[in-house]
Amino acid sequence: MAFCGASATAQTQFKNHLMPLPAELSVGTGSLALNSTFAVQTPGISDARLTDAIDRDVRRIEMAAGLRHAGRGVTGTTKLVVKVDHPSAPVQSLDEDESYLLSVTTSGVELDAGTDVGAMHGLETLVQLVQADGNGYVIPVVTIHDTPRFRWRGLMIDCGRHFEPVAVIERNLDAMAAVKLNVFHWHLTEDQGFRMQSRLYPRLTVKGSDGLFYTQEDARHVVAYARARGIRVVPEFEMPGHSTAWLMAYPELASGTKPNEIRREFGVSPYAIDPTREATYTFVDRFLTEMATIFPDAYVHIGGDETPAPDWKTNPRILAFMKAHKLKDNEALQAYFNTQVLKIVARLHKHMMGWDEVLTPGLPKDVVVQSWRGEASLFKGAKEGYEGVLSAPYYLDGMRPAGVHYLADPLPSSSDLTPDQRKLILGGEVCMWGEHLHERTIDSRIWPRTAAIAERFWSPENVRDVDDMYHRLIPMSVELESLGLTHLESDDAGLRALAGTENIDALRIFVTAFEPVGFGERSQTQHTDQLTPLDSFVDAVRPDPPSRHWFELTVKGFLGDPKNDATDHAALAAWFTQLAESVPVVRQQMAASPRLSAVSARADQLLQLTAMGQQALQYLASKQKAPAGWKAQQTETLNDAKKPSALVRFTLLPALNDLVNAVEE
Amino acid sequence: MAFCGASATAQTQFKNHLMPLPAELSVGTGSLALNSTFAVQTPGISDARLTDAIDRDVRRIEMAAGLRHAGRGVTGTTKLVVKVDHPSAPVQSLDEDESYLLSVTTSGVELDAGTDVGAMHGLETLVQLVQADGNGYVIPVVTIHDTPRFRWRGLMIDCGRHFEPVAVIERNLDAMAAVKLNVFHWHLTEDQGFRMQSRLYPRLTVKGSDGLFYTQEDARHVVAYARARGIRVVPEFEMPGHSTAWLMAYPELASGTKPNEIRREFGVSPYAIDPTREATYTFVDRFLTEMATIFPDAYVHIGGDETPAPDWKTNPRILAFMKAHKLKDNEALQAYFNTQVLKIVARLHKHMMGWDEVLTPGLPKDVVVQSWRGEASLFKGAKEGYEGVLSAPYYLDGMRPAGVHYLADPLPSSSDLTPDQRKLILGGEVCMWGEHLHERTIDSRIWPRTAAIAERFWSPENVRDVDDMYHRLIPMSVELESLGLTHLESDDAGLRALAGTENIDALRIFVTAFEPVGFGERSQTQHTDQLTPLDSFVDAVRPDPPSRHWFELTVKGFLGDPKNDATDHAALAAWFTQLAESVPVVRQQMAASPRLSAVSARADQLLQLTAMGQQALQYLASKQKAPAGWKAQQTETLNDAKKPSALVRFTLLPALNDLVNAVEE
Repeated sequence: MAFCGASATAQTQFKNHLMPLPAELSVGTGSLALNSTFAVQTPGISDARLTDAIDRDVRRIEMAAGLRHAGRGVTGTTKLVVKVDHPSAPVQSLDEDESYLLSVTTSGVELDAGTDVGAMHGLETLVQLVQADGNGYVIPVVTIHDTPRFRWRGLMIDCGRHFEPVAVIERNLDAMAAVKLNVFHWHLTEDQGFRMQSRLYPRLTVKGSDGLFYTQEDARHVVAYARARGIRVVPEFEMPGHSTAWLMAYPELASGTKPNEIRREFGVSPYAIDPTREATYTFVDRFLTEMATIFPDAYVHIGGDETPAPDWKTNPRILAFMKAHKLKDNEALQAYFNTQVLKIVARLHKHMMGWDEVLTPGLPKDVVVQSWRGEASLFKGAKEGYEGVLSAPYYLDGMRPAGVHYLADPLPSSSDLTPDQRKLILGGEVCMWGEHLHERTIDSRIWPRTAAIAERFWSPENVRDVDDMYHRLIPMSVELESLGLTHLESDDAGLRALAGTENIDALRIFVTAFEPVGFGERSQTQHTDQLTPLDSFVDAVRPDPPSRHWFELTVKGFLGDPKNDATDHAALAAWFTQLAESVPVVRQQMAASPRLSAVSARADQLLQLTAMGQQALQYLASKQKAPAGWKAQQTETLNDAKKPSALVRFTLLPALNDLVNAVEE
Repeated sequence: MAFCGASATAQTQFKNHLMPLPAELSVGTGSLALNSTFAVQTPGISDARLTDAIDRDVRRIEMAAGLRHAGRGVTGTTKLVVKVDHPSAPVQSLDEDESYLLSVTTSGVELDAGTDVGAMHGLETLVQLVQADGNGYVIPVVTIHDTPRFRWRGLMIDCGRHFEPVAVIERNLDAMAAVKLNVFHWHLTEDQGFRMQSRLYPRLTVKGSDGLFYTQEDARHVVAYARARGIRVVPEFEMPGHSTAWLMAYPELASGTKPNEIRREFGVSPYAIDPTREATYTFVDRFLTEMATIFPDAYVHIGGDETPAPDWKTNPRILAFMKAHKLKDNEALQAYFNTQVLKIVARLHKHMMGWDEVLTPGLPKDVVVQSWRGEASLFKGAKEGYEGVLSAPYYLDGMRPAGVHYLADPLPSSSDLTPDQRKLILGGEVCMWGEHLHERTIDSRIWPRTAAIAERFWSPENVRDVDDMYHRLIPMSVELESLGLTHLESDDAGLRALAGTENIDALRIFVTAFEPVGFGERSQTQHTDQLTPLDSFVDAVRPDPPSRHWFELTVKGFLGDPKNDATDHAALAAWFTQLAESVPVVRQQMAASPRLSAVSARADQLLQLTAMGQQALQYLASKQKAPAGWKAQQTETLNDAKKPSALVRFTLLPALNDLVNAVEE
């Protein structure tokens, strides 16, 4: 980011809360006072989509600034001019011009963009620029030239394993728009559920969805809702694996073994669509043709991952087919399948997308590979001429901190790709898999971490200051809540349900020491399937709580200062005290709530850890040495605390370890 | 409530969390352990509505008890037998048999009811019976004979002044079902908006709704959703007053003056539908006939209140009509209008309902009067032979405590009505008017207070223990949240939006001292209209916070004990300390948030009040006398704190006053 021209005489101190950071920002002098709502001018355009977006975003600015809403068509005196160069294409493409130029002066705002989508991004930036100034609200004088680094900036939500109501999708689309993501990848089918209504094949949802599916009207509504926010919708229909739900409905498509029920277990299933029968392709053709009437996007995702298909190794008919077609193994048979499906997709004038595994020898180049295996796999594809989208480092179910995701770059300048190969890396996609999602917890699993990743996809490569990102993530998180996201509320609701009371002051403090374990660890420790209730302690604990980064930063500040800064010391000591004091209260609530008492051993450990922290602070502040053996003993306690228990991890271990190690013995 | 047979040897201590309390409850010995999900039997019935309700409620029990969900059709080993005597009528009537008999033994549950609706009430009771017992969850052995006291137990939501999305209606219907309310009165038209789509008169929503309205599919969905929960839907279409939105769309129906725009101001408008033209009745006839295809209920509400209609006193054509028809004044003309509309309603085989003002001389008896003016008006109607529903004491926008609403009885045994007149009092209806509602705050305005009122409508008259009600309201509130209600979350979201940060620990404590002012006071102090943003401090503060009743109870306990109980003392002192300590932190946040700083003077007062409380505690605990003049000074401070400021009231003044008065001087 080029950050230039911040005048020392500016009356308003510019607080940069923007996320993602723009490509170029220059801060001028003064600010635009928000004491009247806007007089909107949109010379030369009359696209209802843009008008609606202006209406919506002006309303958000009014709310933030406490201004009376102007009704539609009613205008104030502050000028807001929005100019768009070209009319929008009926279907948003990968090559949409998303850039914009935003100029705020002391008298008004001008926004220039090539397309509606660029203008909508500019409006989101404008909303984020509102800040308090003395007794009122202002937008600082700035000029912003902005354009995204990657064309494909996606979020995938798995609605197959657990269904998510349309309202959940809507609010996540609002959040995506706020951070300038532009692809909603809708994972619609899984072993655990077929979520998209087909009129040609109604049994898909009748038999395969437990009644939880999107009607065609729902899906059209989602597509329109997304388009109104500059977001493409790429639907995914998994084949030939992850297809138990298809096969429950149409067992004649199975490769041999037929499922008796919707699969409740997660993981990789043995069922697979039969790639050797003509009827399969007739089915896929008719189905995808029907879906193309609902999903206008130029891309369709066919999954294609994790298909062990044991039937392909034993079914004599399939083995005979493979022999006849010189297909030596399952991989070759799946490549054959992909090639047939690709023909169907091409006939629909669409591009096919698939997970890593679709990348098999002989596959035509017109396939986009979504890499869940990692950068190596992505770059290998690019070297072979395939377009690709990186997902591996953006799996939210790993429950890793935002800062870790943030630093993973889809295309570091250090990579050895040629300029032409670099062009094949379209961007990145955040993946939210659904094994442990409940509609009440999904938002806190996705947000605000995805805002940090969205910045990675949009902003220049050298925007990599993790502390600064976390600093901006706090207001970003509140902005997302104002859009209707429930990521900040749902933990409390979960805690109240566990405790059976509103009095969760102590519990609220207690949980700040924890984060959920990642998908892998949870799957190994707890048997979960689609019917497991997702209302345990772990579900009420959010990934990467703000206290984690705050603690790390404060410990770093404390240790970095030779005088062991008293403010940091006091803040750390106060947190340890708060945490320790929460324990007896939480214990009382455990006594009345068996579900809560699952975390009992963690409460004991928390007391040990806070005592350790207080001791370390004392030694360090007083420059005293600890008695011999103290550190070894603490290390043992820390190692114990690292062990899995109650499906949660302590967030404070690494920084606490630093504190302990800083003590002299 | 007959509370009998609670055995002293019961292994499980029965915790009565039921709300509303049942008519008859007897507690047996032991409990049913919830270690397997239910084997459901529904001998002799196959109504999908009941099957769905069983499914939903069993799932809630499983969630509460941490059991793995059984999929539909999959059953466990705990017996749940649900027997229903009669098939359901296609449209639920006022005379629906809602009683049920619920028997829990150590091996299973049997539920017997006359109708599906009774069975659904019994299931809600069953959900509320789940409680923790040692390391697991149980349902205590009980026998419950239950039946409602009143047949009409309603909640009205005004969706005219501010539109509420369908999701808001759905979750409020869920909450109504949980507390056994059975009438959703849907206030669909107002001066500020016509919210119901008509295909015959499409301009009603095109011109009269700002695009915010329910489609016919939405409305049919709401009716079905309500029916699935044993709730009738009574739609209200206001006429001839409160009709600016109608008249915006069809100005030819106006009495003279025609509106230029949707009315943004609240209060009583001068516009009125013209009662003297035949075209008016053709319009009303066709419109109500269309609506009858969507709303099957036997009742339709025509509003009828607040129609000053100045045009009726000046329009020569109307004056001539009145003279010709011997109608001496506006009231007589409105009675004429009502009589004409009543004929239309009767032709549709429906009953007409209206607010107090419809009760005019000569009105046929087949009209139900909804009394917003009070019991006197209701009883007057009954004496004249009109059926009535009481609403006056249940206006939620007065922001009064649940305990006050709770004690207001629609038909106290002390009333002087004859037995036949008593039968005309159908029940009561809670009213949630929409002037200051936002979809994010509406739940906290309605719940949990409405649960207390629902108990008034359902339970025997002698169930009147306010402290016990508040005790049960705490788990009830959490139960409502588990159904998706946002009443406990929305305050926090509002506070975060005001503070611009997640760090609202201090603010959260600070707000416990406040409640919003009532509708009247807010309207007098702040000019609000439909476009006022509803995101001020007052909107983030909820009515009757639990701290209010806790404080009263604890002060009462402290003062009632001659030794001035140390536990109460400590609890009160701790709360005062917490409140006082919150102030400096909140002040810092005010500096960064002009919208929050509106409450600055209240912060000063809070410091004075908490200091006063601490001093009073000290004097009382130490049996010291206060210096002369101390009480007078405190009284002055208390009186100052009572004065309006920042649209909020202190909740702690009455009890604090008691504390101060107990000090000797």
